[in-house]
Parts: sequence; C-alpha cells; structure tokens
Amino acid sequence: MKKILIANRGEIALRIMRTCKEMGIATVAVYSEADRKAPFVKYADEAVLLGPPPSSESYLLGDKIIEVAQELNVDGIHPGYGFLSENAEFTQKVTDAGITFIGPSPEAMRVMGSKLAAKAAVKEYNIPLVPGTDEAITDISEAKQRAIEVGFPILVKASAGGGGKGMRIVERVEDFEEQMDRAVSEAISSFGDGAVFIERYVGSPRHIEIQILADQHDNILYLQERECSIQRRHQKVIEEAPSCVLTPEIRKAMGEAAVNVARSCDYVGAGTVEFLLDENKNFYFLEMNTRLQVEHPVTEQITGLDLVREQINIARGEKLAYKQDDIPMNGHSFEVRVYAEDPMNNFLPDIGTLSTYRRPQGLGVRVDDGFEEGMEIPIYYDPMISKLITFGKDREEARLRMLRAIEDYEISGVETTLAFCKFALKHEAFISGNFDTNFVKHYFTPDKLEVDAEIEEEIASLMAVKLFESDKKASIQVAENGGSTKSNWKANRM
Amino acid sequence: MKKILIANRGEIALRIMRTCKEMGIATVAVYSEADRKAPFVKYADEAVLLGPPPSSESYLLGDKIIEVAQELNVDGIHPGYGFLSENAEFTQKVTDAGITFIGPSPEAMRVMGSKLAAKAAVKEYNIPLVPGTDEAITDISEAKQRAIEVGFPILVKASAGGGGKGMRIVERVEDFEEQMDRAVSEAISSFGDGAVFIERYVGSPRHIEIQILADQHDNILYLQERECSIQRRHQKVIEEAPSCVLTPEIRKAMGEAAVNVARSCDYVGAGTVEFLLDENKNFYFLEMNTRLQVEHPVTEQITGLDLVREQINIARGEKLAYKQDDIPMNGHSFEVRVYAEDPMNNFLPDIGTLSTYRRPQGLGVRVDDGFEEGMEIPIYYDPMISKLITFGKDREEARLRMLRAIEDYEISGVETTLAFCKFALKHEAFISGNFDTNFVKHYFTPDKLEVDAEIEEEIASLMAVKLFESDKKASIQVAENGGSTKSNWKANRM
Repeated sequence: MKKILIANRGEIALRIMRTCKEMGIATVAVYSEADRKAPFVKYADEAVLLGPPPSSESYLLGDKIIEVAQELNVDGIHPGYGFLSENAEFTQKVTDAGITFIGPSPEAMRVMGSKLAAKAAVKEYNIPLVPGTDEAITDISEAKQRAIEVGFPILVKASAGGGGKGMRIVERVEDFEEQMDRAVSEAISSFGDGAVFIERYVGSPRHIEIQILADQHDNILYLQERECSIQRRHQKVIEEAPSCVLTPEIRKAMGEAAVNVARSCDYVGAGTVEFLLDENKNFYFLEMNTRLQVEHPVTEQITGLDLVREQINIARGEKLAYKQDDIPMNGHSFEVRVYAEDPMNNFLPDIGTLSTYRRPQGLGVRVDDGFEEGMEIPIYYDPMISKLITFGKDREEARLRMLRAIEDYEISGVETTLAFCKFALKHEAFISGNFDTNFVKHYFTPDKLEVDAEIEEEIASLMAVKLFESDKKASIQVAENGGSTKSNWKANRM
Repeated sequence: MKKILIANRGEIALRIMRTCKEMGIATVAVYSEADRKAPFVKYADEAVLLGPPPSSESYLLGDKIIEVAQELNVDGIHPGYGFLSENAEFTQKVTDAGITFIGPSPEAMRVMGSKLAAKAAVKEYNIPLVPGTDEAITDISEAKQRAIEVGFPILVKASAGGGGKGMRIVERVEDFEEQMDRAVSEAISSFGDGAVFIERYVGSPRHIEIQILADQHDNILYLQERECSIQRRHQKVIEEAPSCVLTPEIRKAMGEAAVNVARSCDYVGAGTVEFLLDENKNFYFLEMNTRLQVEHPVTEQITGLDLVREQINIARGEKLAYKQDDIPMNGHSFEVRVYAEDPMNNFLPDIGTLSTYRRPQGLGVRVDDGFEEGMEIPIYYDPMISKLITFGKDREEARLRMLRAIEDYEISGVETTLAFCKFALKHEAFISGNFDTNFVKHYFTPDKLEVDAEIEEEIASLMAVKLFESDKKASIQVAENGGSTKSNWKANRM
C-alpha cells in the first residue's frame, strides 16, 4: 500500500496521516471549502477540494471521493469515524473500484448496523443480551406475559423510537397495562407505529466497550476495555482505560464475548463491541461499532499499539503479530473531548476564532486536534476542538495529570467544555470510581461551574499576591538595570 | 512538601514544575535577566530575579538562592541538572538552612564526584572497573610493568588531564616507552604535571547507563538502562531505552551492579550509574551522576514512571512503592537533543529568534522545551532548544516515529541539529544497532547532510508536482466559487 486517501477531516484525518507518514505511505486529503486552511489539508501529500459545506455536498459524496481516489492512483481509503465510515454501500463501491477499504466488509457493517440482525448473528455464541423480546409486540396481554418472564423493572420501548420518545420504565407488574398504554399511544403519535419492545431495565449501567482487532487469517484479539460512562445526552465526554470496576475475570469474559461478536459477522479490521455493565457486574452486549472510535487513543496509551497502523497492516493482509496474552495493559489513560460549547449555556456551540490556542505539554500528555491558533472553528461540523489525552502509572496519576493539562491548556476566543471536564474529574463519584451513565444527569448543573468560578476568584486573589511579588521583582529589576548589576537583592526585595 | 524552588532554567525547570503542579505543590522560579520572558518564569507560582547573565551572577549564586527560598518559605529545592545540581557545598548549605534538597546527600555527591573516591567506594562490591592503575604513576618502568599486567591495547591518560589532552593509545608493548614519553611531556606542557594513569583501552565501547532510585529506607531499584552511545565530542546527542544489545542477563547484572554502586555511597534519590560495554559484552563502571539526567524521559516512556515525582516522594521520606520485578520495560523510546547549532558549520551555536516554532504532535511524541514561537535563544546558555522524545511498541516503530516527528517539527530563524539527527537515525549502523561511541567520528561529515540536501531536492521536485496538483485544485476552487457549487470535479481537474 503506497497511497491512502483519508475520507474525513479534522483531528482524525491528521491522526491517520501521521501514521501513514511513519509507514512511508503517501496521503491524499479531500476537503470542503470550509476546511481550506485546515492543518490536515496542508499535511497531506495531495489534497482535493470536494465541494462546499454542508457534508452532503462534500464529505458524504462517496462517488466523487472514489473518483478522486482512482484518479490519483490511491491504493486504500481510510474513512475515519462518522461521515461514510459505516456506510456499507460506500464500502462496497470502494471495493468494487479495486481500492482497499481500510475497515470491515460491507456485510459485517450491514449485520452490525441493524440491531435485530446483530442479535440474530450473535445468538449462537451465547453472548449475553439484555433479556427481552426479539420482536416488536402490539398485543398488550402478550406483552405483559413477556414482561413477567423478563422480570421487573422493565423498559417498554417503541420499535420505531429514538431519543427517549415512546420509552417507559415500569417498576411493578401492577403498573404494566397503564404504562404500556401510554408508551403505545406516545409511539403512535410520534412515529405512527404502536409496536413496542420489552426488555429488562438496567438501572445504573456503566458503558464499557472492548476494542478488538481481527486480521484476514481468522485471528481476533481484544485490546482490553475502555469505560465511557461519563456521557451527556448519550454523547461520551470522558473516556478511560482500563475501567476501574472490571476484575480480570470479567475483563476476560467480556473480551472473549467481544471476540465472538466479531467472529459472528466475520469481522476484519479494528472494531469496538459495546456492553452495558449492571450493578451486579453482569454485562450485556449493546452493539458493535464497525470503525475506529473517537476514544481509541486511551487504548493506544495503555497497550502501546498504534491502532491506525494495525488497521493498515490488517487491510494489506498481514497477520496480527501478537498473541492474546501479549497484549499489554500498562498504567491508566483518560481522554476528554474538548468542545467549543458553553457549559454555562446548556452546551450550545460557541463558534468563533481560536484567538489563543496553546496546547499543554510534557510527560503523559497528548493532544489530538485539527486546529492552529488564529483559526476559525467552522459552524458546519461537530464543534470538537480536540481530544486531550493523558497517561499515568495509575488512575490517580493520570487524573491529576489531566487536571494539570486542563489548567495548562490556553484557549481564548470561544467557550469550551474544559471547565465542565474539570468539574467531572474533581467530583467525588468520579474519583472513587462509583459512577454510571447517569453521572452528568445526577450531579451536573451549571451552578456547579459557578462554584468553580468562586475558586477562580480565590486564585485571582492569590494571583494578586503574586503580582505584588512581581512588583517586588520589578523593583529589583529597576535597581539592577539602573544601577549596579549586582545590587543587594534582599534590600531591594524588602 | 508544599512549595518547591527550582534552581534551574529552561526545559528542565518547566518539566519539574509540571509535576509539582500535578502533585499540588507550589513552585518558585529563580531566573536571570536573559530569561525574563521564558515560559518557566511565567509557569511558576512565584518568580524571583537572581541577576544578570552569565550564570556566575545568577544561576550559580547558591547563597542568594537559599535566601530566596527562606524568604518565600520554600520546603524543598530541586536543582535540575547542571548549575548547582552536583555541588556538594550548595547541597550542604541547603540542608543546613532547614530546606530539603531534592537529591542525594553532600557526602554521596563528594564520593561520586571524585574518580578515585568512587573507585575506592565501590571496591568491596566487586563492581567491574576498566583494569588499570588505581594511582597516578610517574616512573616509566613501573608504568610498563603495570601496562603488561593490564594487557594491551592500553590507554595512557594524564592524571590532571581532560578533553583528550595527554591521552595516548598504545597497541603493542614495543611502543610503550615512546608513547609514554610523549604522553608525559604533553601532560607536563599542558597541565604542568607529568603523572599518568594506565588502563585497558576499550576499543569499540558502547555507553550504557542504569537509572536507579533509592529511598530513605534502604530500598534501591534499577529502572532498566539507557543507551547513549551516539555522542559528538563526548556529548550525548541521541539516547534510547532499552539498549538493543543488552540481554536480560547482562541487564540484570548491570542493574545489580548499579544498585551496589548506589549502596556503596548510601545514595538517596534518583541517580545514574554509567558503564562502558565492550565488544565482548563485558561492562565496566565509569561513574555515577548524582542528579536527574537530560535523557531521563526515555526511561519514563518505557517504565511509565514520572522520575521527578519519584524524586519528590523520596525526598519527603516515602518508601518506593515497587519491587524490582514490578518495574516495567515496555516498548522503545528515543530522545534527540535539538540544538540551535549548525551541523553544516562544525556545530557552531546559531543563536537567534525562533521565528517559526511548531512542535510535532500525536501518538508517542513528546517535546520537552522551554521556548515559544517568537522567542530569542539566549547566547549565555547551552543552546538546546528542546528534547524530542518518541515512544513506540518496538525500536523500529519508535525510530520511524522520530523521523516523522523531525519532519513535522517546524523551526525557522536558527539552524538546528535536526538534520544531523535525521542523518544518524537513517544510518545503516544505527538501524541495525551495530554502533559504538565512535559513530559520529566514523560516519559523519557535513557532506553527508548535503547528500541529504540532494534528497530534499528530490522532494522539492516532487513538491513541484504537488504544486501543480494545487494549481489544479485552485482551478476547481475557482470554478466552484465562480459558478455552480457542484461543478463536475473531473472535468475541472483535467
């Protein structure tokens, strides 16, 4: 593989290109008019404009991207995440055009892209699933029967639903009919379809996912887990590896389940199998993401592996060079997603120019971003500025390093979610590891940031002392510059 | 420990302060007039001007630094490397002032600061030394007798010497008298002292050093080795961990020898025991450095430990939290020292303003520096711009990552040694691991960089093709901006 086209933008495009450069592989960027000045466009060996924003007129133009790839004699296409990365049709077309798609087959994508197909596929591997109905139900007495079998509390979910609509938690069997009625009528009014699923309600779930690598020679490995329970409206905001609640036994069981999920769809490439972990440490398969994930760096930090390099090696037919027992798990890593959003104002995007932009540095700090100081954050895309990643010998060291890195990160011109991340990282529940996916809902309100602002005031008053010290320094300087260069420091300082 | 004064400047001051911040410890910077705008001064919680350059009027003013520390209620002083870091008298005064010196005792410093005292101290531990005389000799027949005992080839070294003066390699016993005569007369004319040492000449030595940590409770650990054989005039320029020639057996033997060297002087803190390794993989104790070393980051990368944190923990009396077998050795790390020196012009310092300064980023890349874009490199100090560190799952991955990071490092305004580092990293002997401390002397001449410049020309011609591509891009842009936003890309590209 000599030349790879990256069908993506921003930090992930840049991150993929860096590995390509290390592997001696040339890169082609494709970009929209809004990204003309983006670092990933400059970094690539060749770059081709696709069209204007929005993405439907540029980054989602699969056919055009394939044309560009053919024109420039590209051997492989890396889709990154989002955009066309889980589009089976695009994947098929890339393959049909004689270009290597750096990711799984269209078939695997299709199976894992459908909840029902995925459930059917994993059935023979005894993968634990949240107990519930396999098919949508409309009949209320049948539904009740299934609910009793599954066990309360249960969740009634509209078959056509999404975003929490047509979803009801039912604690006791006595309430079933009434709640089911409501769920069905909500589903009909929202989606025009009254069919519902019944499943066990997992009360305080943790989101834990397993990174897998599968080569073309039937070898599948799991690269330990990531915990992504800190979410805001189902969006991950802080990720870590390893999880602080997995025992070696659960890790092994979950890892082997993930390998079997991959096996069930003949998976090839890097993928992620997502699980829910309940209060009793039972885990349930949620879904498989058939691409590189935003949070993949925390796995890279604890395993020492470059996941993009592994993806490319797999795509060109190489065998995985490791055995399961050789996969390291060293230290601890966190990632926070830094968004141009205002946590004081309901996390509304705060688009603008990065008038100051200085990254934190030093041991155990990594910043994956796609911006430079002075650049504008385009309004058309996800307003993620960067992924701030830290590594430490243990969870506490990595956490303190993250807090230090957040302090050192200088961003002005836009509001960011850094203050929110600081809030979370300093929260008792987070520190103790005793949290679940409801962390933000349970603990966060904007006034929590105001408390933090008070601390800032305290710091400001301390700074005043420091400035006073500086004044003293200034007087020393004046004395030294104006008179003897070796003036009595102490006398001047007093 | 609540507040630490860092008696140093530049990258190492900043690096120490970052760890202090992570540990919740306040920091005091001391600085010279030349460093007024340096990032380490801004980063500190408090900063005090010491005086003008040169260092004798600022960074070497031990008494003044202690006064500042007392004035500001500092609990500990970290000396970094260089300046006062191995000054036993300063260490004693710090301790006498009731301040914790973050480093070993003055006694340990004194013993290891003298070659003869160090040799005497380690004697009872059977540490292998380069065979030779323990004391200076003036009598020629006595010298010859000792030379025969030691075995040829031997090295005749002026007792008062340094920098290669009064040093002679003698291959055969027949040449001894003549060469000894020359060495003695050279020694007399250079140093006014004709006494010489005789020792076995190690022909193709590799420089390998062991990082040790010793707490106040008699626990001493070795944190594997660093190889620093790539040197220019006895200055290390590229370091790596682990060494590619040590077997687990030699590593263990060398590590245990290093622990014994530390034990021989009741060492406390972080220290480095340097060894020569000869062609037959025999190793010989050279000296012990009683401070944090410039190249400590490569050890941090493969062990996952923060050596400054360990130093501070030891200084405040904590026990080492690990057993020897728990010390990890994962992956591979390189460090190159980036100097404002011109490798085309005999490595003369090239002082000036960093008009462009953009650091490489991404997985496995760390830059420890003390500059920002636009800053001037002061003429008064070592012209090191930064330490560029990479980490990879194996040596080759770390090497390729370093080459990528060097490519990505954008520095203009001064000449740097990056091109030289690239030359070394791409050299066959370096890649194969088959090199010794003569690498630079054997292989490097400035025209080697010109060969590299030819490659740059090739790249430039390839770039012309890319610019041609860009022209095509421009025409697409014009078409799209001027007319239809969804113009036929292919037609425009042709």
